[in-house]
Amino acid sequence: MLGNFTYCNPTKLYFGKEALNGLREELKKYGKNVLLVYGGGSIKKNGIYDRVVGILKEAGKEIFEDAGVMPNPTVEKLAEGVQRARAAKADLILAVGGGSVCDYAKAVSVSVNCDEDPWEKYYIRFEEPACPVLPVGCVLTMVGTGSEMNGGSVITNHAQKLKIGHVFGPEVFPKFSILDPEFTFTLPRYQMVAGFYDIMSHILEQYFSGEDDNTSDYLSEGLLRSLIHSTRIAAKDPQNYEARSNIMWTATWALNTLIAMGKTTDWEVHMIGQAVGAHTDATHGMTLAAVSMAYYRLILPFGLPKFKRYALNVWGVDPAGKTDEEIAKEGLSAMESWMKEIGLVMNLSELGVTEDMLDGIVKSTLIMEGGYKVLTPDEVRTVLKESL
Amino acid sequence: MLGNFTYCNPTKLYFGKEALNGLREELKKYGKNVLLVYGGGSIKKNGIYDRVVGILKEAGKEIFEDAGVMPNPTVEKLAEGVQRARAAKADLILAVGGGSVCDYAKAVSVSVNCDEDPWEKYYIRFEEPACPVLPVGCVLTMVGTGSEMNGGSVITNHAQKLKIGHVFGPEVFPKFSILDPEFTFTLPRYQMVAGFYDIMSHILEQYFSGEDDNTSDYLSEGLLRSLIHSTRIAAKDPQNYEARSNIMWTATWALNTLIAMGKTTDWEVHMIGQAVGAHTDATHGMTLAAVSMAYYRLILPFGLPKFKRYALNVWGVDPAGKTDEEIAKEGLSAMESWMKEIGLVMNLSELGVTEDMLDGIVKSTLIMEGGYKVLTPDEVRTVLKESL
Repeated sequence: MLGNFTYCNPTKLYFGKEALNGLREELKKYGKNVLLVYGGGSIKKNGIYDRVVGILKEAGKEIFEDAGVMPNPTVEKLAEGVQRARAAKADLILAVGGGSVCDYAKAVSVSVNCDEDPWEKYYIRFEEPACPVLPVGCVLTMVGTGSEMNGGSVITNHAQKLKIGHVFGPEVFPKFSILDPEFTFTLPRYQMVAGFYDIMSHILEQYFSGEDDNTSDYLSEGLLRSLIHSTRIAAKDPQNYEARSNIMWTATWALNTLIAMGKTTDWEVHMIGQAVGAHTDATHGMTLAAVSMAYYRLILPFGLPKFKRYALNVWGVDPAGKTDEEIAKEGLSAMESWMKEIGLVMNLSELGVTEDMLDGIVKSTLIMEGGYKVLTPDEVRTVLKESL
Repeated sequence: MLGNFTYCNPTKLYFGKEALNGLREELKKYGKNVLLVYGGGSIKKNGIYDRVVGILKEAGKEIFEDAGVMPNPTVEKLAEGVQRARAAKADLILAVGGGSVCDYAKAVSVSVNCDEDPWEKYYIRFEEPACPVLPVGCVLTMVGTGSEMNGGSVITNHAQKLKIGHVFGPEVFPKFSILDPEFTFTLPRYQMVAGFYDIMSHILEQYFSGEDDNTSDYLSEGLLRSLIHSTRIAAKDPQNYEARSNIMWTATWALNTLIAMGKTTDWEVHMIGQAVGAHTDATHGMTLAAVSMAYYRLILPFGLPKFKRYALNVWGVDPAGKTDEEIAKEGLSAMESWMKEIGLVMNLSELGVTEDMLDGIVKSTLIMEGGYKVLTPDEVRTVLKESL
């Protein structure tokens, strides 16, 4: 059942080859001081940095740089960003990068005017901001997280071995995002396909939840089929604009709240993956890929009708002469073949996880209650062990 | 290909059994004077009027009534509404009703501060508002048009025998909409199923366009399957909350710009249906149902791959041993069976159209260029004749 909910997604998106022109329009709405947030400097090599800075200067903005946002942004970096934003008296935070950079920009945006410790307030106590939130805009250069049109913000605390995401409300969503598929073309293959699986996992975390099926399930199946279709093309031909643009658009809708409406949502794969990330600093999408098959095979008996539906509607499994369980398992096998086909990391060993790390990862794993099976710590360990 | 586009949909939706509580929150954002717009008075019988007025009074609002909005709102009624809104110095227009009432509220909202003739400016010259637009909120009591989350506004000019829709930009979208599926329960069966087909037609007008397939096509297929599933249940059991809520949600996403992204979109069925409406005042959804099969069978050869895809992905046609054309035609037959099953009007004669009216309807039909075949007036006549 869809149940009761509120839906609001005010982010404005500029999509396509001319998308960056949207930045000129948007900059008119904000004051002079722009905190320009980015990562390790790849945007300087591919020319995006120069184009963005050119537009900022043309608009008469004062640019304050905050570079070096890492793939898993840390509490220490967040503290630094907050200081920079305060010193700059920033009117706008412009994130140029992938999901990590967008996530980080949002974390800074809710912390600049907050006197409390943001890690404790937002990522441990999960409170909402009680202070003015700085506006954030995004120029996306990597696809996967959906951070360009949602309130998600994942921060890592290495000292505490925790990687935790807070999903903020619409006031923290980016005011605008620039989505030019060509901006993602220079991304290394490994990061590209990791992002593809992050999208897949976002959809499945929402799809594999809930007792009865609703419009969100049908929309999810549409997104899944679109994603599978286009990732097969992009894995062979990464410069295929059509495939990359459809993947970019699918990624946005995979995690901008739409397909969560009326679903309890699970997120256990993300919790296990994030725990792996906190212990290894491995690429997010690959941590999800490495643990997914073991997790889904473990929970399949508890959500059999949905896994059967998944096999039929998403993977086109022929049901003739098969039991429900056989159909469901064949769906997962088809999924596994696709994962190997596009080049995902299928086990944790490749990500640097060794057996002696498992207890620590289990401890760092948050247990979710919205899926078909609430895992025990022992079951988390089983999933990890089978994923080695 | 998805191409270049801008996406922005700022309407806030309150969905479910508690949705009307959202009105209390929203009213805080607007001034004292509320123009309460509604139709023929059914909301007084089913209690929705009293509940809305109660909340307005509780919030200390001054209520100015504008009742009697007809199913196909006229230019004369629009002129009256503009006068009422001006006299009330309205701060908010609250539309309580179906798509016609929402459409009308938007037409008033862009005309209150406009010195020009709104019919000429918006519906003949298709200009955008150059004046302040009054905020509109909706309490939806009938499902179908998607008007609760888009800029669409259809107005009828009986003197000119024209029924024309203008699709305004996000500044004209309702600021908020209240979507309680139970508010649609007292709707007569005829209007209910007409609304169901309006939804279907909205999706198909977007789906049956464009040379190559993109994410919008996959999302459309998801919406179509959800709609077919739930309308079958609701046609048998109109009080089924789950089915009615999924249909309500599908209707919103069928026409809030999402699935139009990257599509040329067609709208020829709507143009023919609206011409029929201008000549007969027949229920909108039924005019679409009556002309659809003849139209789709006529254009099928020009969009064969898409009609085949429709048959396979939406209607589950078994392709074994069949030509593409046979598969495509079987899809349309399955659609026709579903239309009859849920109780749609399948011909124009039932709507009061006679052969001597056809020339006039052809003249009133706008020819669209985004579908698989740009119709000649003769072909419009053929569609109408075969639909008699």
